[in-house]
This record gives sequence, C-alpha cells and structure tokens, in this order.
Amino acid sequence: MSDLLRLRPAATAQMIAVFDDAATIAHGCAFEVALARAQAAHGVIAPDLAEAIVVGVDAARINPAALAEEAALAGTLAIPLVARLRAMVGGAAGQALHRSATSQDVADTVLMMQVRAAHVLLETDTRRVHDALAMHARVHADRPAIGRTLLQDAMPVAFGLRLAQAARGIGDALAMLDTAVATHAVVQLGGAAGTRAGLEGKGLAVIAQVADTLGLARAPPWQARRTGIAALGVALGILIGALGKVARDVALLSQNGVGEAREPLLAGRGGSSAMAHKRNPTGCQVALSAATRAPGLVASLLAGLPQEQERGLGGWQAEGPVLVDLFLLASGSAAALAFVAEGLEVDEAAIVRNLAAAGVGDDIGESAAIIAELLGGRKD
Amino acid sequence: MSDLLRLRPAATAQMIAVFDDAATIAHGCAFEVALARAQAAHGVIAPDLAEAIVVGVDAARINPAALAEEAALAGTLAIPLVARLRAMVGGAAGQALHRSATSQDVADTVLMMQVRAAHVLLETDTRRVHDALAMHARVHADRPAIGRTLLQDAMPVAFGLRLAQAARGIGDALAMLDTAVATHAVVQLGGAAGTRAGLEGKGLAVIAQVADTLGLARAPPWQARRTGIAALGVALGILIGALGKVARDVALLSQNGVGEAREPLLAGRGGSSAMAHKRNPTGCQVALSAATRAPGLVASLLAGLPQEQERGLGGWQAEGPVLVDLFLLASGSAAALAFVAEGLEVDEAAIVRNLAAAGVGDDIGESAAIIAELLGGRKD
Amino acid sequence: MSDLLRLRPAATAQMIAVFDDAATIAHGCAFEVALARAQAAHGVIAPDLAEAIVVGVDAARINPAALAEEAALAGTLAIPLVARLRAMVGGAAGQALHRSATSQDVADTVLMMQVRAAHVLLETDTRRVHDALAMHARVHADRPAIGRTLLQDAMPVAFGLRLAQAARGIGDALAMLDTAVATHAVVQLGGAAGTRAGLEGKGLAVIAQVADTLGLARAPPWQARRTGIAALGVALGILIGALGKVARDVALLSQNGVGEAREPLLAGRGGSSAMAHKRNPTGCQVALSAATRAPGLVASLLAGLPQEQERGLGGWQAEGPVLVDLFLLASGSAAALAFVAEGLEVDEAAIVRNLAAAGVGDDIGESAAIIAELLGGRKD
Amino acid sequence: MSDLLRLRPAATAQMIAVFDDAATIAHGCAFEVALARAQAAHGVIAPDLAEAIVVGVDAARINPAALAEEAALAGTLAIPLVARLRAMVGGAAGQALHRSATSQDVADTVLMMQVRAAHVLLETDTRRVHDALAMHARVHADRPAIGRTLLQDAMPVAFGLRLAQAARGIGDALAMLDTAVATHAVVQLGGAAGTRAGLEGKGLAVIAQVADTLGLARAPPWQARRTGIAALGVALGILIGALGKVARDVALLSQNGVGEAREPLLAGRGGSSAMAHKRNPTGCQVALSAATRAPGLVASLLAGLPQEQERGLGGWQAEGPVLVDLFLLASGSAAALAFVAEGLEVDEAAIVRNLAAAGVGDDIGESAAIIAELLGGRKD
Repeated sequence: MSDLLRLRPAATAQMIAVFDDAATIAHGCAFEVALARAQAAHGVIAPDLAEAIVVGVDAARINPAALAEEAALAGTLAIPLVARLRAMVGGAAGQALHRSATSQDVADTVLMMQVRAAHVLLETDTRRVHDALAMHARVHADRPAIGRTLLQDAMPVAFGLRLAQAARGIGDALAMLDTAVATHAVVQLGGAAGTRAGLEGKGLAVIAQVADTLGLARAPPWQARRTGIAALGVALGILIGALGKVARDVALLSQNGVGEAREPLLAGRGGSSAMAHKRNPTGCQVALSAATRAPGLVASLLAGLPQEQERGLGGWQAEGPVLVDLFLLASGSAAALAFVAEGLEVDEAAIVRNLAAAGVGDDIGESAAIIAELLGGRKD
Repeated sequence: MSDLLRLRPAATAQMIAVFDDAATIAHGCAFEVALARAQAAHGVIAPDLAEAIVVGVDAARINPAALAEEAALAGTLAIPLVARLRAMVGGAAGQALHRSATSQDVADTVLMMQVRAAHVLLETDTRRVHDALAMHARVHADRPAIGRTLLQDAMPVAFGLRLAQAARGIGDALAMLDTAVATHAVVQLGGAAGTRAGLEGKGLAVIAQVADTLGLARAPPWQARRTGIAALGVALGILIGALGKVARDVALLSQNGVGEAREPLLAGRGGSSAMAHKRNPTGCQVALSAATRAPGLVASLLAGLPQEQERGLGGWQAEGPVLVDLFLLASGSAAALAFVAEGLEVDEAAIVRNLAAAGVGDDIGESAAIIAELLGGRKD
Repeated sequence: MSDLLRLRPAATAQMIAVFDDAATIAHGCAFEVALARAQAAHGVIAPDLAEAIVVGVDAARINPAALAEEAALAGTLAIPLVARLRAMVGGAAGQALHRSATSQDVADTVLMMQVRAAHVLLETDTRRVHDALAMHARVHADRPAIGRTLLQDAMPVAFGLRLAQAARGIGDALAMLDTAVATHAVVQLGGAAGTRAGLEGKGLAVIAQVADTLGLARAPPWQARRTGIAALGVALGILIGALGKVARDVALLSQNGVGEAREPLLAGRGGSSAMAHKRNPTGCQVALSAATRAPGLVASLLAGLPQEQERGLGGWQAEGPVLVDLFLLASGSAAALAFVAEGLEVDEAAIVRNLAAAGVGDDIGESAAIIAELLGGRKD
Repeated sequence: MSDLLRLRPAATAQMIAVFDDAATIAHGCAFEVALARAQAAHGVIAPDLAEAIVVGVDAARINPAALAEEAALAGTLAIPLVARLRAMVGGAAGQALHRSATSQDVADTVLMMQVRAAHVLLETDTRRVHDALAMHARVHADRPAIGRTLLQDAMPVAFGLRLAQAARGIGDALAMLDTAVATHAVVQLGGAAGTRAGLEGKGLAVIAQVADTLGLARAPPWQARRTGIAALGVALGILIGALGKVARDVALLSQNGVGEAREPLLAGRGGSSAMAHKRNPTGCQVALSAATRAPGLVASLLAGLPQEQERGLGGWQAEGPVLVDLFLLASGSAAALAFVAEGLEVDEAAIVRNLAAAGVGDDIGESAAIIAELLGGRKD
C-alpha cells in the first residue's frame, strides 16, 4: 500500500522511515542475529552455527511485498520471515536460527527498537517547539495582553504567560514520554510460552546480551503484560494533546478579529484552492488534526490491556499499528509546530488594541514570576 | 510510505486499492472533469473549455509521491492537484478547471466515491459471513448444546441459536451501513464558503449532473455538517463489533477443553513459529484485532463533529484517514470471517459431551423458532 | 450516592428522573407483573397466581439503598429484586413470579422502557433547538456575513446559512435516533439461555403481550446481540456532536473581537466568581462539555459488542451506565441550547462591520436556496 | 440524583464518599478558609477578617440539593458556594472571602484534594490484589501447567507465572499512579486569569501555605495546562486494564472445561436469578466491566487537552466527572479482585489433567526465576 496521499500529511518522512518495511525487516534480522550470537556466547548453540547465521542473514534479499502477503496470511510476521532466513542460511545453522524464540519475541523486540528510534526523532522536534515557546514567553514576560477564559475577555495576563503554560505542558508530556521509553522500551525474549525454555538456564545472560546489542534495556519476558505499551501510548497521547493546546491558541490568536499572532509564512503552505487572499493556519491544522485522532487511538491501546493468558487473541495484534499511528501523528504535529513556534509572528499593536478594548486595566499580577516558575520546571 | 508489513494483515488487497494513491488521483481528476462538463452543460463555462479539460486531464501523468509531498506541505490535496491539472490542460481551459470549486469539494467528493466502492466490496464479504452463519444455524437448529452465560455453563440451547444471533447482528449492522451509504454518500459541491457562488444560479443543476456522473446521490453542500461522515463511521464500527462477536465465540468454542467448533485449515495460516502442533484461530484474531481498534476510531470521528464555522480546523482533516482505517479493518475482518464461517468445523461429539457434563438436560425451548425469527429479520 | 454537585450540570431534572432508583424499581416491578399476566393469559401459570402477583407487588415498599447494596454484591439487580417481590407476594404466587425469566430479561427490558421515556424528553428539547435555529436561518437567509474556514475569514455567506447547516445536522441526528429507538428499543424475554424455555411453546404470544403492555416493540430475544444498544448509543453520540457544532459556532461568534451573536441573558447563569463584567457562554459550555465526553462513551459501548456466548462477562454489564450517561449528557446539551437558540441575540451591525473588514464583497451565491434545501430535509 | 442502582456496583462505598456532595462542599469550604488564613498571614487581608471567616464558614449549613441546582444554572460550583459563604460570614469578612481567587481555583483544588484521598483508598485495595497474586505466584512457582497463547494450548508454564505477570502489571500501573499523584495532585491558585493578581506579590507564599494546609503539593497555577489531569486519568486507565487482565484470566480458568481456578464463594454474590446451580465469576465481571468502560473515559479526558487560552470552554468542565468515574470504576475493580485474589481457589488436579491432555511435557523452563524477577520489580 503506497498511500502517500492519505497518510503523508500527518507524519515526517524520517518518522515514516522508522516504521517502514525496510526498517522492520532489518530489525527482525538484527534480532535473529543478535540472538544467535548471544546463544553461542553462552553455549546454547555452537559458535559456528551462530557464525553462519551472522554471515548468511541478509535483509536486503527479502522482498517486502511478498513477505507482507505471507505475513498477512499467517497472522504473524515472524513465520514467513524466519522461514526465509532459515532457507537463506541453510543447513543446521538455518535450523538453529530463531531457536527457543517465538513470533512475539521478534515482533515486540522489533517494535521496541523502532520506539527507541522514533523517540529520538520526536524528542528533537518537540524540544524545538518547547524552546521556541519558552523563548517567546520570556520575551513577552512583561507585556500586558488580555487574558481570555471561556472564550471571553477576562483579565490581563502577560502575553508570554499563555506561551509559558503551553511550553510547560509540552515539557511535562515529554518528561512522561522519556520515562516511559526508558522504563518500558525493553527487549522481549521468552520463547513459546514466556518461560525462556530451551535456553538451558542461561536466559538471563542471553537476554542481557541481546538487549545490549540491540540498544534496549534488559527485562524479564512481558508476554501479555502490556502496561509498558500502554505507558508509551498514553505519553504520546498526552504529548499530542499538549501540542494541540498550542495549535488551538495560535489559531484563535490569528483570527481576523483578534490578530495578536500568526504562523510564519511558508512557501506552498496555508493557501486555499479557491481564495488567493487566505493565509490558513496550516501548521495548527496538522497539530489539531492529530489531537482529534489521538484520544481514540489511546483508547484502542488501553482496550487491549486485558489480554488472555500468555499471549492474547486480537488485543495483542492491535497494538503495533496503533502505537505506530501515534508516533506518526506526534511527529507531524511536532514538526509542524516547531516551524510555527520558531517563526511565530506577534503583533504588538493588536495586543495593545485588544487589551484596551477590554477595559480592564493592565495589571498582570505575578505573570513574570509565574513564567519563570513554569519554565524552570523542566531542566535542560 | 510502503508499509505493507504494518498495514496489510488487517485489510483485503481490493479494499486497499479502493483508497490507494492511484484511485485517489483518478477520482480527483474525474471530479474536475465532471464539474467542467456540468458547468458547460449549464452555461457556466464555455463548451470548448470543458472539452479541452476533458481531453487534457490525464491522471496517469501525475506522480503520486511528488503530489503527496506537496499536499502534505499545503495541508490539502486539492491545491497541488489543481495546479498540476491546470498546467496540464493549459491556457484558458486550465484556468476554467476547478472554477467555483474549493479544496473541500474535491476532498469530500473523492472520499464519497471511495466510500461507495468500498461499500460494495464490504457488502459482498459481509454477506458471505452472514449467509454461512445462517446456513450453519439452520443445520443445527435442533441440536442441543450447552448454553453459556458469564463464561459459565448455563442451560441448553440449540447449537445453531448462537450462530443465528451472530448472523442477525451482522445483518442488522449491514442494514445500518446500507442506509448510511444510501443517505450520506453524496456529492459535495459548495465552493469557497459553501454558497455555490460563481455557479450563476445553476448550482442545483450542476450538482445534479456532477453527482449523477460520479455515481453519488445529489445533495446540498454539507461543509462543516459532518453527521453523514459520522453515520458512516459508526455503522462500520458496529459492523466490526458484530463481526468480532462471531470471532469471540468461535475462538472460545475452539479452546482445548471445549472443542465444539474451529476454523477450517488454511495453508499458511494459523501456525506458530515455535510450536508446530498449534492451530491458531487466526481468522478470529484478525476480526478481534479489528474489533479492538474500531471503537477508538469511531470516537475520533465523533470528536470531530463540533467543527468550526464553514470548514473546521483539524476536525475536518482528521476524518478521512480514520474513515479509511475503518473500511480497511472491516474488510480484513469480513474476509477473514467469511473463510471461517464458510468452512467452520463443528464437532458434534464434543457438543454432546459438553452438554452431558453440564447435567442440565437437553430442553432447548423454542430455539428453532427463534432461529427462524432471527434469520427472517433481514430480507434478501 | 447523592452526587448532585458532580452530575447535575449536565442533565435535566426530568431526564435524571427517568433513570433514577424509583423509576428503575417501578419498571422492574411492571415487568414482573406484565410477565405474570401474559403467562396467565396463555396458560403458562394459573390465573389466580397472576392475580396475586398483580395485587402483591408494590414498588413503593422497596428500599432503594438496601436493594442497591445487595444488587452490587450479587452483580445483578434482578436477584435481590425478585427475592423481595417473591417474599412480598408470598406462597405459590411468589414462586411463580419471574418464572422462566432471567436477570437479563429484567435488566434489558427496564433499560429499554427508560430509553423510550428518555427519547420522548430528548426529542422535545432537541426539536426546540432545531426549530429555533431554522427560524433564525430563515430570518437571515439574505443577510450577507463573512464566512469563515479554517478559523480565517473566507468568502461571504448568508448569516442564516451556518445556522441552517447546524439545524439540518441536528435534524439528521434526530432522525437516526428516532429510527434507532423505533427499531431497537424492544422487549427482552428469553429466559436463562435465551431459548424461551419454560414458556411451553407460547413464547411468541407471551412476548407480544409483555411488549404491548410495557410500550415496547416485540422482538425475539437479543441476548448477546448488542447491535441495537450500539445503534442507540451512536445516535446519541452523533446528536451530542451535532449540538456541539452549534455551541462551538455560537461561542466563536460571541468572542469579543467578533460579536455577531451571543447567548441570551439568563438570571444566575454565565457569571464569573471573579469578574463581574463577564458574560460567559454557559449554555455553549454545557453542550461542548457533553460533546467532549460523548465520543469516549460511544467507544465504551462499541467495545462491548464482541460479548461472549449467550451473555457476556463485563461487556454486557458496562452498557447500562454508559447509555444512561449519554442520555443525561444529551438532555443537558439540548436543554441548554434550546434556551440559547430560542433567545439568540444577533448583532447586525457587527455582521456588517466584520464583512466589510474582510473586503471580499457581499456575493452570498445561492445561500437562500441552500437554506431552503437544507430545512426541507426533515419533514415535520 | 440518588442513583444507587445504576452506579453502586462499580464502586466502593468509601470511594463514593470521597466524591459525594458532603465531601465536595467540605473541601470547598476548607479551601476558602485556608486561603483567608494564608492571605492574613502574608498581609493580603486583615487578620480579623480571616478570623471571622474561619469562625463563620460552616459546611454543614449548606443544602447540597439547592446548591447543586444553582451550580448547574451558573455553570460553576463556586459562584453559588461563595455567595452562600459570604452571606454566612457577613460584612467585610464576607467580602474578603474568596478574594483574588476564581471558580477554577476552588474547583481544581477541591478535585485534587479528592484525588489524594481517593488514591490512598485505591492504593490499599490494589496492593491487596498485587500481594495476593504474588503470594499465589510464589506458591505455584514450580507447578507445571499448560500455557496458552491465542486461546490455544501452547507449551508448559509454571502455574504461578501468569499470576506473577499479572501482579507485576498491577505493580507497574500502581507505580505510574503514585508518580502521577505525587507530581500532579497540586494546589490551583491563580485568580481570574491565572496571574495571581491581587495577592500583592505574595502569591508564592500564599500558595505554599494553602497547599500545605490542604495536604497538596505546591505549584504555579496550571489553568488550561491539563497534562497533570491527563496523567492521573491515564494511570487509572492503565490500572483498570491491568486489573482487567487478572479478571480475564481467572474467568477463563474457571470455565467448565478448564476449571483450574475460580473465585471464592461469597454469600450473596455470583448467583443467577434463573439457575440455582450457577456460580458466576462476579468479581471478575465487575473488573471486566470497568475495563470495558475505562478506555473511552481516558479518551474523553485526553480530548479535552487542547483547551482554549486561560480557561477552556467545555473541555475543562468535562474533566471532573470523567476523572471521578475512573476512580469509582478503579475502586470497584480493585475491591472485587482483592477478594478474588485473596481467596482464589486453585484446583491442582485440573492443572495436572489439562497439562497431560496437551501432551507437551512439563518443561517450565526458567519460570521460577522469571517469577522472582517479576516480583522483585516493585519494591515494598
């Protein structure tokens, strides 16, 4: 499915690449190779078998479309992938490949490798949003503007206060995501029923080596315990929501009767096919679209938590695509808003005009102090 | 994004084709051509301009990847598509293309054309599930089996009763979807702000011709009134849930220790990468995975309903991908269960054994009559 | 739980009364009495037993708090309710009460009786919203105003067009709800496993009489087939969303830099505990709060669709409270907006001013015709 | 609304009391008193005014039903509450009450006080579930049982392994909730627009004292930054899901053809109104019902994140009831499962029988070691 037109707007090219077929296949191969090496290192399989596996496995020789076809039929990626790799390696070494492992070990570990890579990308763009908002907040820490509650003019605030609140929200969400990744993006290796059977009592050592090789934290098998997946998903959901808050406010500020701020101009963005004069808040649109979709996706992830026994039927298989969607949406939102926040155009005259029209004076209380408190909340 | 491995298992190839880039571009072109023809027929543009548009527009000359890139930037597909088509057609005719239309007209109309095509596919597979279940229900209308409530043995039922209930549920859901498609899969043509400005008072006639040409029902512009999209989405959500009910029951019946029914054997499906002896209910898995994901997607659609003014920011743009996901999931579920239902293997000895073990006799009440009532509920 | 402060704002007193303890108990008693009468009429139990039941059952003698305590423990309302009623009636008649019925028969039938009553209330308030919007739409069918897309000034529309679109959306949603109630608010009577065992082959006749007595449509048992419940829930979800659309637009129109319309003044509503000058769009707030909550509730209902076997574990029990919440929220939203729509204050000078500021002329195209098309869409 | 029959089953009486009218009013009064004292301590109001407020405020004199009525009308609790308290205190002291505060300060702070109390209750019951599961897991750490994947017999596991995984999942979820409460259950005090205007530069000190008095952590105003509320909600959602996992497995184990474990008998629980022989897994039912509802509620919370400006319209008001629902459901689930886990009846003969029937030997690999690793994961 080459569905660029339906999926592209909501994700960065780099994030799409993290989860594309090539990456998925490459990570699956890396898992099998790391497993063989670790098993050889701890005497579970013979060293020459591992060496043959290392040499023989070649992700580039796998046809993604054909593999996908068979994976869809089998109901799991690992079966056709392992069959190909065994044929590729051949002989006794081929048979030793994937020994004591199961489909879930491949699927969960590959997903967690992708989560780690996706997190790095997302962290960068999200931090850009945060830092740009924080910068604007500090610049406008003493500038009186009308505050608005329930969509009505209320009392004065520093223009920077709203931005500082938004930055802090993003910082809070990012901290949750960082914690979730550090805690829960771990290796999965448990074998058929999650007992590490067949690893001859060396399971802990084998897991440690596989995890280290693949850049994941070590962990006991997690099988149908999906609280970690859920923790990752909810952190993404909160992050997308926190980004949506920025987009909502910028879009409201850029309304024609308000005009206090607007997105920077980007060639090719924000036009209308019918109205040449329009300048649409397209970056905000991307973020608000993501924020509209994320809560339902989070619900889908949570719905899978009560999975059956050692490996669930349906709930488990639903997780991967949903978590990927959340990363894609988050990436699109963060990238769009990084551009918006960094180039935000503030109209100081409009701020003055709107505040005066409200007729509530210009006492912004302890706004500046609060901005400082808020922006100190996430250590850089 | 050629993400076969992540998306394929949950959808049929035919359904994916309905929504792929080629179809999206072709429908977009068909819309512009139909619009030009209709405008010419009613004197809004000159006939020779329309003729030049008909001749000049060629979907095959559009590069999907480049178009997607620009659409992502622009925040809407129509802008780069129309730009390409205008250049392709050239001259005054190029300028007449898309006249009085707007991005939303293209996007919504294309989506509804895809909905019509998707509905036909889905109807076929779903009907197969329904009919196969109804057939089994009639065959086992008098066969006593243990009924189960709250996952515990309860009182006897006809083995066919549960299947008839499931068939009826699917029939009910399909009827809702049929109604939703008939009522709400309509053309969108309103222009920049939904007023049919620029159509010189011929809006009704132009719309009628465009709708007829594209195989859609006629309708006034719907703009930010998205109850129709919601009606389509919830019908899909209910259908996926009703299919999930079948999958849940077949999976429970095929448990070791129960064994009253199981999926038919399909070469390449249902195996385990670690356990050669296993026969997994993979068709049920596909349907249950879809049923885990659908409720959240429906929530995402509903969340977009309170869209702003004449065209929403974020809520509108979120709809397309979500509705597409629902169709993809529904297609995968229906296709998987069509195979399961048609080839369902029933173990009559196990049914007798389990009923006897329950020790509650074999009075199945009016099961056969109820089955007849249930299956008469959807006229064919 | 007397949680007025947490629950009251979102529901009308009449709607709360539909679902309160007294109503639930009264309907449960009415079901048992109707069942006994119907069974006697068709020879399933002796007439004098039915007579004793009719005379003996007295809802007023049941203590709701004590009943709730036991129902929570039992996991079902019917067990302690039936125990009380049997004791109340006494003797052989007491034992004949609830014969051949099961907990689900009481629970589902009572819920459907409440759905019918709730629908009548909701229809009234929603119709008020629709009619008031339609009236304003017709009044302002030729008044040029600036149309807004993506939260930016776009091209002119009739001021009434947006209101007509909103009215039509509400009309569409109401039509779905009407259909769902007519089709799916039916009696449930199947006995222990849904076979009508124990009704001596008179099930159809008994059901018919019970249904007629209780004001419900006749139907075969539906047991774990919950597509009807889902259809009711999604219709409510769409209605709440369509009402939310009105609230969103009124709130945006009443912003200080826009000022084209606002809620009427209602003594005691819309104030601020800190700002005496404020006039908050509190009716819109109620509707938007409901619209924020409804999508998730709909997802919860749909999540329960794949229920196990003859009666599910968890999925079934989750439905009642969720459906009730949806009715409560819908009632609060409709009532709040009925007041808003009927008293909507339109500022024609602001409309003129904002349109002039946009500088896009005043061509409102076929707005008036479209308004007529939209408002003809629901027959009264 | 005294809706015991509809709401009671899903929550403990203690948890209901945390959120009932009396508690809400008492906390609201405590907030105003603490605020007055803190303002007096830092020279914002005169000490004698504060003293009069301390003496004059009496929660017991407030009629909850009348207050609820007015709060529903006003759209906020604080307005009628403050009006009552000012009248109660009278004079200049009455006017000084609530000075520089706003409705949101009362509402958010009261909710956070309730969150703290609810957390303590929930922690206790959840810990009971965890500890009982861990105990059983250790007892059965070496007992071979059949492991099951995709609802089919797979390979052997220690019977205790599944329980240990479930315990660890609950422990993980509880740790997330603990962190969320510690980090985000903080005081809210910002005044009309969140600037601490009117506190004469003593905002930080006043907040500190109010927070300390009320048992909350100190924090800058959070206004429309709702990431903390979201963090609380998602942790509850994950916890309810992790509890649901236990319920799912116990219910599956207690099926008639499996019989390896079942809920303990509790007088008055688990019966059937139609089948005296039945023993329903009612504790599991409560937990699974909660797990069906929670994902949608979490989606509702996340949907509110992109709130407008200094205080949102609709999104903010939706949060309280949803968060309360999550606590109620979590409490019901944890309490029900504490009883189930502590009294879990394990049938060792059935375990042996089912394992033998699977014919896959009895190699449970490193199950015992994994159990130890899992249960060491949460420090006590």
